[in-house]
Amino acid sequence: MSFEEAAIGVIEMARYAGARGWVPATSGNFSVRMDEKTAALTATGADKAALDASGVIGAEISGSPHARASAEAPLHLARYRANPGIGAVAHIHGLAATLLSRRHAQAGVLRLEGWELLKAFAGITTHETAIDIPILPNDQDTVRLAALAEERIHAASLCPGYLIAGHGLYVWGRTAAETIRHMEAFDFLLTAHLHEEGAR
Amino acid sequence: MSFEEAAIGVIEMARYAGARGWVPATSGNFSVRMDEKTAALTATGADKAALDASGVIGAEISGSPHARASAEAPLHLARYRANPGIGAVAHIHGLAATLLSRRHAQAGVLRLEGWELLKAFAGITTHETAIDIPILPNDQDTVRLAALAEERIHAASLCPGYLIAGHGLYVWGRTAAETIRHMEAFDFLLTAHLHEEGAR
Amino acid sequence: MSFEEAAIGVIEMARYAGARGWVPATSGNFSVRMDEKTAALTATGADKAALDASGVIGAEISGSPHARASAEAPLHLARYRANPGIGAVAHIHGLAATLLSRRHAQAGVLRLEGWELLKAFAGITTHETAIDIPILPNDQDTVRLAALAEERIHAASLCPGYLIAGHGLYVWGRTAAETIRHMEAFDFLLTAHLHEEGAR
Amino acid sequence: MSFEEAAIGVIEMARYAGARGWVPATSGNFSVRMDEKTAALTATGADKAALDASGVIGAEISGSPHARASAEAPLHLARYRANPGIGAVAHIHGLAATLLSRRHAQAGVLRLEGWELLKAFAGITTHETAIDIPILPNDQDTVRLAALAEERIHAASLCPGYLIAGHGLYVWGRTAAETIRHMEAFDFLLTAHLHEEGAR
Repeated sequence: MSFEEAAIGVIEMARYAGARGWVPATSGNFSVRMDEKTAALTATGADKAALDASGVIGAEISGSPHARASAEAPLHLARYRANPGIGAVAHIHGLAATLLSRRHAQAGVLRLEGWELLKAFAGITTHETAIDIPILPNDQDTVRLAALAEERIHAASLCPGYLIAGHGLYVWGRTAAETIRHMEAFDFLLTAHLHEEGAR
Repeated sequence: MSFEEAAIGVIEMARYAGARGWVPATSGNFSVRMDEKTAALTATGADKAALDASGVIGAEISGSPHARASAEAPLHLARYRANPGIGAVAHIHGLAATLLSRRHAQAGVLRLEGWELLKAFAGITTHETAIDIPILPNDQDTVRLAALAEERIHAASLCPGYLIAGHGLYVWGRTAAETIRHMEAFDFLLTAHLHEEGAR
Repeated sequence: MSFEEAAIGVIEMARYAGARGWVPATSGNFSVRMDEKTAALTATGADKAALDASGVIGAEISGSPHARASAEAPLHLARYRANPGIGAVAHIHGLAATLLSRRHAQAGVLRLEGWELLKAFAGITTHETAIDIPILPNDQDTVRLAALAEERIHAASLCPGYLIAGHGLYVWGRTAAETIRHMEAFDFLLTAHLHEEGAR
Repeated sequence: MSFEEAAIGVIEMARYAGARGWVPATSGNFSVRMDEKTAALTATGADKAALDASGVIGAEISGSPHARASAEAPLHLARYRANPGIGAVAHIHGLAATLLSRRHAQAGVLRLEGWELLKAFAGITTHETAIDIPILPNDQDTVRLAALAEERIHAASLCPGYLIAGHGLYVWGRTAAETIRHMEAFDFLLTAHLHEEGAR
């Protein structure tokens, strides 16, 4: 995929998230894999809700960091290195994700179970299932955080995302379109789960 | 009604629901009856919030399933077979519907009572009334689920919908416009009811 | 004011309310006084969120009801008869208004106190005040309900509205613009009050 | 900066806040510093959500009040006098800010701690931090209120805002763009904090 094609996917994900309030205060970042070695990635500081191509850079998946890369680029690139099937990664700050990631930080995991909308995740075909979302402690050292994330993700799990406590959600898919579907499914399911748990 | 006219009604319902966040992650489906034998129906996998005519198929109400029909087509078609007065059917995943369907799954029914907006349902002329919404257990076998739904719907009831636990709402009307009004009334009433019950 | 001018005010209020979800399922109605004897009023059944001039009628304030008048027209017209300073009336079904009207129906009144935004109501100049919103029991006989409303409204009160239990809010002002400001202030204050009371 | 340039910043902040429901019922006000002596400021009574240049005035930072200045102008101008680094000030009435300002009025302060989004505030580089937001009692004498606000703001604090009880939030930044980012960060963090505290 060319940089131009990949940048379109990055912009689509960013604007979609922006329109839903998932990237407040210029937070969040988005990437689309171009090939084995490179990915298009949001630049640091860009307003994701109004993103255009000037806010997207081409980054080496295994090389040294790009000068304008977001500080969270290592979390995106580690996913591409670990799984060749991943074509797009998004990081968003939805309200339910932020709240639940902090409430269950100690447990280190959040289980979603029995909802029909779990079928929105690639590979899940029945509501009679559960996914366990890993929750990592937050860390400003994103290289160290990316390494921990990769340790905590089970290769066999059908859960396409993890939470960082008090921070937000990482989510991925084979394409930008699938990643958008996964973002929306996570936001709905986490919001429903938060309501079901109730205030504490 | 021609396929083109019916498809317009399907698209109107789908976009209306999409704009309100009731069909997250490509969920939901919509149909409009053309005549005794056929209905226009959303195809599997279409993004309902951005639906156009390419995502609508013509389906036989009593025949063998269309290759591109949604897996939930049987639930739509069973309604058309059971009641010649039904002209449109919608399936949506609103938050309140999803939460209440799961909270009251064991009881198998949810009563809405005394609200002025009950008058938005065709045939109801006073707030001094109640409707009992059937709640079915979820089931990936949608032919079996459709049969159960038809058993549970009382022919004399003025309630134009039922819930599936952890899944969402089915709602119908004489026309697409009436079904839109019914969708909106259910969403408002279920949201109000959820607030009134409070967290548990 | 001509019918055309008054209809513009009616449409502005209706679309404003529609865009905020305050007139679900074709509920709500709106009017603007033209002169001592007549008012422009939403017709029965119109979709308020997409209102145009075809959904507005001219009604006699004291005469016999217009054939296409909303069933709730008497509640509007009684206000114009009672107070020559009222130039516009709106009836909306916001969520907080509906919930609080039902929760406090027995008490028959809801007090809002100490909020800065009370100053959005005409004549209020400090947050160190309180308004008592009358709450009426719902009644499908709107002539009887209008008579009760006029009994319950204190001429000296600065509260430009009343609630009907399980139904919604009536609100008025000197102009359509002031009535829009009052609608928005009520919605904000009732939502804040609902949160402050908490679930029960 | 010319008045025209400053007015553009004022309008951007106002419309941004208006689109998010933070300036209900013509509440809120916004300003951008032009130079040491003057600032562009919203005029009293303007609808901030639909603001244009006719609703913006040029005000002397230390001089006598402008005839069309908002009653809350003193709160803006005191900030410009106190800190030459401040280029823009916004006052908004978000729901969470209004509720928390009232709930914690007695304590006089609200602490936000440990959230990743704290990094959206200028100068904060890690989530392992806390900010203490001053909460002032509401006062219709805005000259007196401005003096109290300046007493309560710690020069060394990285918190770019304060709350007024039952009223809303004041927030500032070096530029209009930074102030928009700070508004959005406060709204997200206060909403998250409110959910975490739960109903009382």
